[in-house]
Amino acid sequence: MAEERLPSRSDNFAEWYNQLVLRSELADYAPVRGCMVIRPYGWALWENLQAALDSRFKATGVTNAAFPLLIPMSFLEREKQHVEGFAPELAVVTIGGGEKLEEPLVVRPTSETIIGHMWSKWIKSYRDLPLLLNQWNSVVRWEMRTKLFLRTMEFYWQEGHTAHAGPDEAEGRTRQMLDIYADFAENEAAVPVVRGQKSESEKFAGALRSYSIEAMMGDTRALQAGTSHNLGDNFARAFDIRYLDKENQLQYAWTTSWGLSTRFIGAIIMVHGDDQGLILPPRLAPHQVVVVPIHKSDDERALVMGALDRLADELRRFRVHVDTRDGLTPGFKFNDWEMRGVPVRLEIGPKDVAREQVMLARRDTPGKQGKLAVPFAALADGIQAMLDDIHTALFQRATDFRQAHTHTPSDYAEFRQVVEDGWADVWWCGRSACETEIKEDTRASTRCIPLDQPGGTGRCIHCGEPAEKRALFARAY
Amino acid sequence: MAEERLPSRSDNFAEWYNQLVLRSELADYAPVRGCMVIRPYGWALWENLQAALDSRFKATGVTNAAFPLLIPMSFLEREKQHVEGFAPELAVVTIGGGEKLEEPLVVRPTSETIIGHMWSKWIKSYRDLPLLLNQWNSVVRWEMRTKLFLRTMEFYWQEGHTAHAGPDEAEGRTRQMLDIYADFAENEAAVPVVRGQKSESEKFAGALRSYSIEAMMGDTRALQAGTSHNLGDNFARAFDIRYLDKENQLQYAWTTSWGLSTRFIGAIIMVHGDDQGLILPPRLAPHQVVVVPIHKSDDERALVMGALDRLADELRRFRVHVDTRDGLTPGFKFNDWEMRGVPVRLEIGPKDVAREQVMLARRDTPGKQGKLAVPFAALADGIQAMLDDIHTALFQRATDFRQAHTHTPSDYAEFRQVVEDGWADVWWCGRSACETEIKEDTRASTRCIPLDQPGGTGRCIHCGEPAEKRALFARAY
Repeated sequence: MAEERLPSRSDNFAEWYNQLVLRSELADYAPVRGCMVIRPYGWALWENLQAALDSRFKATGVTNAAFPLLIPMSFLEREKQHVEGFAPELAVVTIGGGEKLEEPLVVRPTSETIIGHMWSKWIKSYRDLPLLLNQWNSVVRWEMRTKLFLRTMEFYWQEGHTAHAGPDEAEGRTRQMLDIYADFAENEAAVPVVRGQKSESEKFAGALRSYSIEAMMGDTRALQAGTSHNLGDNFARAFDIRYLDKENQLQYAWTTSWGLSTRFIGAIIMVHGDDQGLILPPRLAPHQVVVVPIHKSDDERALVMGALDRLADELRRFRVHVDTRDGLTPGFKFNDWEMRGVPVRLEIGPKDVAREQVMLARRDTPGKQGKLAVPFAALADGIQAMLDDIHTALFQRATDFRQAHTHTPSDYAEFRQVVEDGWADVWWCGRSACETEIKEDTRASTRCIPLDQPGGTGRCIHCGEPAEKRALFARAY
Repeated sequence: MAEERLPSRSDNFAEWYNQLVLRSELADYAPVRGCMVIRPYGWALWENLQAALDSRFKATGVTNAAFPLLIPMSFLEREKQHVEGFAPELAVVTIGGGEKLEEPLVVRPTSETIIGHMWSKWIKSYRDLPLLLNQWNSVVRWEMRTKLFLRTMEFYWQEGHTAHAGPDEAEGRTRQMLDIYADFAENEAAVPVVRGQKSESEKFAGALRSYSIEAMMGDTRALQAGTSHNLGDNFARAFDIRYLDKENQLQYAWTTSWGLSTRFIGAIIMVHGDDQGLILPPRLAPHQVVVVPIHKSDDERALVMGALDRLADELRRFRVHVDTRDGLTPGFKFNDWEMRGVPVRLEIGPKDVAREQVMLARRDTPGKQGKLAVPFAALADGIQAMLDDIHTALFQRATDFRQAHTHTPSDYAEFRQVVEDGWADVWWCGRSACETEIKEDTRASTRCIPLDQPGGTGRCIHCGEPAEKRALFARAY
């Protein structure tokens, strides 16, 4: 229950974000530095993300499993790139049951290694492939600069892992999961994303190729919102994952991994929110509709609650929360639920009951302009239409915003200007050295090389060398 | 795919269990001693347990949240009984991000302490109570003697935590959750349970009172299948969880916790399984029905698969798996799915199609006696009736078995005999010293003091002192 106003989003985006996460009770700081507690409102949102993703995964033949939290340190060392990438971030268990361990165990930062170990036992023949697994869990990466949801020492995610008979199948699955993330982001969360390949320096430690979906936040910074990696046969060689092919020859499997985390909740907040607070996308919001009954006397109360009882079947089709808290004014409740981002508010008072109607208010267009009187008889259709409209409007607004802040500078001087407040879509030579110089100079990094390319060739925005691909550069979370 | 026969359940129950878990691909051993990998078939079963429990929790107002994995060591030390109980079992992180930590962090063995810490921030007023939270996660307890599902170093569970304004509410919630566990066990898993209170020596470290549901396994040993604890104000005092009551006085809250874990999967295996393998309870089985199409020629195959297509809408009402694997005989598939415990097998061949019928076979009554021809027109009803029958039959069989192996010895000599192969339902004085002597002598411990008491008084089966309650003694997992 927020009495003080939120910091303004345009004045202080970072403080607006932090305050909003705390006040809306999505999450709180945990006692261990860099860890967070996800509170019921935040976890209900995550459960809806999970359901939307999980059903998409399962529709492609993926099944869930659970691999252990603790991994022998030696496992990480088997894949050279992998250990170089993760060694600085590890939490290490050295004592168990009161005794010093012979071999330290790491709390998983990701599970390629332990899954690789198990697969070397399970995969014998081409008949065992493809093997399509996913797990929902948390992982720990020691982070110095943390921020609720966006970068925490422990975070929640799903990590998918698949094994295939060859390069084409692995690449196909990698791209398929990227497409699923994009579909989820746009059609569930109303967050427009660019699908693209990560540069060599930005790819996953141990991957052959990494892909990501990239979204523009409300301050124009980029956020990597999901990643999908073709691991080649790197982990298969490190963990001896081999199968007998149809010609009875031993072959290394090809593997992939792909993940989307609670970071995505940060994206939802930063893409859609406004000065009043959260705006949650209708298909994922814990409460799609909040009902605020309005009454002054006991008689009025009985009248209003009686009408809501008669509407219960219609309302049950949605995730509805009825705010029956005593001692709070309707105005206070309106503000409270606006701050917490419920897409549709349903107001009902004695006059509405007399007219056999309710008032629906849209969170994304505050004030009178978004209000609509809907007859009892058309309630479910009216709510559904409004939820769909809100989804479309949020997606459109975010797409327009991204377009308005995505620039195509014609030289490096202009590039330096535009990345101050937006993304740069430019020809890039692909060299890591060039990328590093740009980053040191402007704090903008390559976000991805979009899959959707215009064709043709150009000159690198920085070094002027020939370039075959356009890349997105931006400051990023 | 098991070619070798399972060890016989009656000859070697322990080895039957271990082999069955591995061969049915419920779980596998992980590289870290005492840890397990839950494979897709096992995890799908756990997901069904989760759904059945989660909906029951939510119906009582509980919401899910997520508290961190890592807990400062000092938190555990605040509640004296708690740290004494858990200190020997801790996994301790001493290195993070490459540096030695100033304060070691423990991997949660349970979350009362960190939740207590957060609640001291969140709970201010009686209006904040009751606070009803749950989380699905894994916890780590260093175990020396481990067994897949039953006792593993890391295990998966839900841990519910609630805070209340006083003793009655806390006790009420503790018992309510115990009842939910019993309802779940009996009506979802077909596992009959006894609800009861744990003795002083068997209660949770830090609890005022602990309750459990106890189930009899197929070898007559007992298994504690779920626990619910009234924590009194012990954790509230340790973590300063206080609220202003309606008279504006500061009061300590009363808290509860309750958990049910992947151990329950062990109970399902050991209660229902037989020499052929698993028998999964119909309401939780990953596949309720396995379809084995029978055909010799391509024409026959087209005929059979065409019929299945026409039945798709009926079949979709259940969790159905169609076994279309090539190169395996129907007989092999029958054995394979029997071993994996699918409740109903649906056979369909060309003759069945001609007669517009399928053959349904029950897993719990192997052989011809359980087979039933069901017309296409009555398929869904036929399957539903068979699933319900199997549930009832499994529950009845387990109840009869428990009854046949629960004894009421009249003296301690007889007691020593009966606990060799069953439970003893006896008057007990309630003294820990007496309990310890019995355990050292017979390896039977108090499982619980059943809530359902006959009334009256008696003499302790061991020491002969006056006894007000009857208790269940048994050897336990």
